[in-house]
Amino acid sequence: NSQLKIFSLNSNNPLAQEIAQEMGVELGRSSVKHFSDGEVQISIEESIRGCDVFIVQSTSAPVNEHLMELLIMVDAVKRASARTVNVVMPYYGYARQDRKAKAREPITAKLVANLLETAGATRVIVLDLHAPQIQGFFDILIDHLMAVPLLSDYFKSKGIPEDQIVVVSPDHGGVTRARKMAERLKAPIAIIDKRRPKPNVAEVMNIVGNVDGKVAILIDDIIDTAGTITIGADALRAAGAKEVYACCSHPVLSGPAIDRIENSSIKELVVTNTIQLSEEKKSPKITELSVAKLMADAISRVYENKSVSTLFD
Amino acid sequence: NSQLKIFSLNSNNPLAQEIAQEMGVELGRSSVKHFSDGEVQISIEESIRGCDVFIVQSTSAPVNEHLMELLIMVDAVKRASARTVNVVMPYYGYARQDRKAKAREPITAKLVANLLETAGATRVIVLDLHAPQIQGFFDILIDHLMAVPLLSDYFKSKGIPEDQIVVVSPDHGGVTRARKMAERLKAPIAIIDKRRPKPNVAEVMNIVGNVDGKVAILIDDIIDTAGTITIGADALRAAGAKEVYACCSHPVLSGPAIDRIENSSIKELVVTNTIQLSEEKKSPKITELSVAKLMADAISRVYENKSVSTLFD
Ligand SMILES: Nc1ncnc2c1ncn2[C@@H]1O[C@H](COP(=O)(O)O)[C@@H](O)[C@H]1O
Ligand SMILES: Nc1ncnc2c1ncn2[C@@H]1O[C@H](COP(=O)(O)O)[C@@H](O)[C@H]1O
Repeated sequence: NSQLKIFSLNSNNPLAQEIAQEMGVELGRSSVKHFSDGEVQISIEESIRGCDVFIVQSTSAPVNEHLMELLIMVDAVKRASARTVNVVMPYYGYARQDRKAKAREPITAKLVANLLETAGATRVIVLDLHAPQIQGFFDILIDHLMAVPLLSDYFKSKGIPEDQIVVVSPDHGGVTRARKMAERLKAPIAIIDKRRPKPNVAEVMNIVGNVDGKVAILIDDIIDTAGTITIGADALRAAGAKEVYACCSHPVLSGPAIDRIENSSIKELVVTNTIQLSEEKKSPKITELSVAKLMADAISRVYENKSVSTLFD
Repeated sequence: NSQLKIFSLNSNNPLAQEIAQEMGVELGRSSVKHFSDGEVQISIEESIRGCDVFIVQSTSAPVNEHLMELLIMVDAVKRASARTVNVVMPYYGYARQDRKAKAREPITAKLVANLLETAGATRVIVLDLHAPQIQGFFDILIDHLMAVPLLSDYFKSKGIPEDQIVVVSPDHGGVTRARKMAERLKAPIAIIDKRRPKPNVAEVMNIVGNVDGKVAILIDDIIDTAGTITIGADALRAAGAKEVYACCSHPVLSGPAIDRIENSSIKELVVTNTIQLSEEKKSPKITELSVAKLMADAISRVYENKSVSTLFD
């Protein structure tokens, strides 16, 4: 078998470290800096000839910086004669630009897939894509992990009686995800029926399903400006929910998000560490769960040519 | 004939405006903004179906931001059914990463070429690439303009007697460019024979050619941290040059560049506007010449399917 090497770029070094630790390996030695004019300067500081290389990088903000770092690293790894170039993207930026919502818009999620292939990626490992259809944007192999088991286990450990829980999807697009969590928690689901007037602005309509007297757990893939989720929480409380928890895979938390969450009726927001939270984004209301073990297992299975989907069967 | 449309992105809007004015057309209507999380949000606000579209964007700093804007715009233009997607890059960022200088380095200049093609560019127009070999990185058509005629004409207009001028290349790589300017000014050339210990650090050796009592004109393609050029100017003065002018196509001017130039023995630095100078980078020592007419002529010729190389014969 050829050798395994894991490299970290700059978006989420703590997660990459944790993944390497889980696997009992050291991160590969590389240097990712900038020239005086801001151009990315990468060099790989150990031989990777014939190796199976895994590059860990979330394309979180600053997204263009992190994406270009990744593309340049893929180019360097390819040219250094790696056997396979596996891109591990715990968070896949630009996923929401996955279709032409209006005329003459780009489909940036597809562009990103093409750019990764062009740079030389031979396989990608992602987690909770905004739309599962993005898997089809790739002609190379893609493994799609999910955080639902991790998030569900956390809520199970709280010991809330099963018959008091209701899992809530903040919109119609998220029902499948909510249903997966509900199955694990043996709870019913509810749906918030809302319309969004424009990007980053949310408006709540009414609640489909019974939440009265229950502990509601809102689940979404991405929480960005937190408008949808905080207004949703208020609507759930107004409809009689006793307590409202929220959770998501990807804590983008841009703009007013932290203020909104701290001032909301959300009791606790549970997120994963696919996106590294800056110090200003840490809040006593936010609990971070690590996807390191999940990602490490996926990397091991890809490396050993075993099925990844069995990870959450 | 199909219709011509010119769009500007955010790196150098004044130049794009000037180009459109030269051509007697209005810039196409588009919006290039950011979502709350920093992702680029582009929309084209007029029909471009069947049109020949020219997108003006220098990939100057912040290079990753400007490059991603460009790639996303190319995707949007392609998907909006343009007939041709022509990318006008007065400054081509990452051009210096054009080869593996050490083992396991990327070749980012080639990556950028591939990314542009993948996004959907059908042709590119560039000016003074750091290495002319970068033309061969493209499988699509590329037009390569040069600023030497523009810079030479400016120095001609100063009325310095021909027999007093010497055109100086700051390194061996720039001799062809210096020779082109020398021919236009009917002057001899000299070469500074230097070694560079590491990137962005310059060291002068000795001068090949006679500069004693002459007006020296240093010419380079890019002036970045200005180490090479200011130390070169000092060496020319030490070797007896009466006055030292400097000129370049692309004023990157990062880090200590402005300080170095202001405190140097350079009398005047002549640059073009391929890169927009921020207010902090304007200096009484720096003269800006516009490439708008040159770029406009190139766009017209490409549009009319005429030879671009005749522009500087
Ligand atoms: N980074 C972003 N922030 C906010 N909205 C976005 C972003 N990227 C894309 N969008 C918009 O979000 C919509 C898709 O979101 P959704 O309906 O939740 O799938 C599209 O109309 C996009 O224009
Ligand atoms: N943005 C940059 N700033 C400074 N040096 C660079 C930059 N990009 C590439 N280089 C280095 O510059 C060298 C090429 O410069 P040159 O010898 O002038 O062609 C290569 O060794 C690169 O590693």
